[in-house]
Amino acid sequence: MGINLQQAQAVVHAAHQKALDMGVKMNIAVVDAGANLTAFIRMDDAWLGSLDISIKKAKTARFFDMPTGVIGSLSQPGGSLYNIEHSNGGLITFPGGIPIKDESGTIIGAIGVSGSTVEDDHAVAEAGVQAVQG
Amino acid sequence: MGINLQQAQAVVHAAHQKALDMGVKMNIAVVDAGANLTAFIRMDDAWLGSLDISIKKAKTARFFDMPTGVIGSLSQPGGSLYNIEHSNGGLITFPGGIPIKDESGTIIGAIGVSGSTVEDDHAVAEAGVQAVQG
Amino acid sequence: MGINLQQAQAVVHAAHQKALDMGVKMNIAVVDAGANLTAFIRMDDAWLGSLDISIKKAKTARFFDMPTGVIGSLSQPGGSLYNIEHSNGGLITFPGGIPIKDESGTIIGAIGVSGSTVEDDHAVAEAGVQAVQG
Amino acid sequence: MGINLQQAQAVVHAAHQKALDMGVKMNIAVVDAGANLTAFIRMDDAWLGSLDISIKKAKTARFFDMPTGVIGSLSQPGGSLYNIEHSNGGLITFPGGIPIKDESGTIIGAIGVSGSTVEDDHAVAEAGVQAVQG
Repeated sequence: MGINLQQAQAVVHAAHQKALDMGVKMNIAVVDAGANLTAFIRMDDAWLGSLDISIKKAKTARFFDMPTGVIGSLSQPGGSLYNIEHSNGGLITFPGGIPIKDESGTIIGAIGVSGSTVEDDHAVAEAGVQAVQG
Repeated sequence: MGINLQQAQAVVHAAHQKALDMGVKMNIAVVDAGANLTAFIRMDDAWLGSLDISIKKAKTARFFDMPTGVIGSLSQPGGSLYNIEHSNGGLITFPGGIPIKDESGTIIGAIGVSGSTVEDDHAVAEAGVQAVQG
Repeated sequence: MGINLQQAQAVVHAAHQKALDMGVKMNIAVVDAGANLTAFIRMDDAWLGSLDISIKKAKTARFFDMPTGVIGSLSQPGGSLYNIEHSNGGLITFPGGIPIKDESGTIIGAIGVSGSTVEDDHAVAEAGVQAVQG
Repeated sequence: MGINLQQAQAVVHAAHQKALDMGVKMNIAVVDAGANLTAFIRMDDAWLGSLDISIKKAKTARFFDMPTGVIGSLSQPGGSLYNIEHSNGGLITFPGGIPIKDESGTIIGAIGVSGSTVEDDHAVAEAGVQAVQG
């Protein structure tokens, strides 16, 4: 469904390289169009707690077809989606999850990255996305 | 308990028609007076993450016999029901869930709708409710 | 992904008719190729505990692309898949779940039925499958 | 803790090659000495239900430092570990999970494979283990 293993591994590889370049230790997860885990790596000494977060970010980005940070901007107190994080077994709605599109613009999966600041997480995820959308 | 299958299907049908009229892709769930799922449909290409949210909205509306958005106004930081979403396996407290009453005003179940803005979700849910309360 | 709503509703309708003919009260669930709930009904006075079972049967049939009873024959004590039921948030491996194929033989989803004997559950599920594979 | 990412990826790569040689579609998971997921791939069109099983097999093998099938032989009715599968959020105790040792014999992690018969699953897992223990 959607992204295949070869593409998913290319996404993980590109994100891993970006993380090495930045000197950060990341968990990197890719899910397919059905939000099922397709490829995953955890860099040595990355935060243990970031493993689950990276997978949840990838799933969240595919569940709603938008970057996780956008959902987080709507789920704040007073926002229209306040506490949406309680659905689907737990969502993560800060940056680091991004949908992956094919060349035609169709969403074929998503990447989730966790292990540093949310800005770093997002930058590494973006590098992963570029490997396929190129 | 409460709403029967024929009524629940009428609610789903009316909500589905409203969603088609509005051009939105919804998950539509109806629970009975016991908060048990009674009828459900997911429109083609609706957000994957909205499946669980639609069911949780319907349950939440019946759990407390009020529209989900009302609960959400009380669950904000500083509010009397702050973080009530942690109960019952996860509540959803933004709009889109509405109790269903029979002609005498007795609550017989609830509808939950998810797939667009909370305003759209609520409008589709309201159309569903009208099918029975007429 | 796979079965669309129109097809899923045809499956549910055919299974419902069969259940009415047999005089049994069923929960009937249809999932798509991604194992996501697509259509569901619970007949009046059907066992409450069968709601979850019907959904788990449909998911189980799609998770492994075979009728649930086949998995159950392998998960018995001493069998090669003993206690596989502990995976995926809980499987149901007795009869009543069947994959749904399109005319070309591709699996597009699955149906799960629960509410009577497993023989009755399977018969109602089979009637649902025929509505699409016909 | 234990296996590092480079080793884990070597294990996954060797198992993947073995699966390709055998013509089977596998989910392949590697956990470290702390039983945390370190590398994972899902081959195209592998069973959806095998994703969770592969991860649970890897965890189970590390939880008790023995091949999953050995635990399964003890968890049968009347056995000393009857229904141990209820612990740790769900164990999988049929073959396909194997501890990974370093050259000194210290256990540094485990591999879990799921997607075919348990004999195939075990053979692919064994190929993965050899990549590090070799």
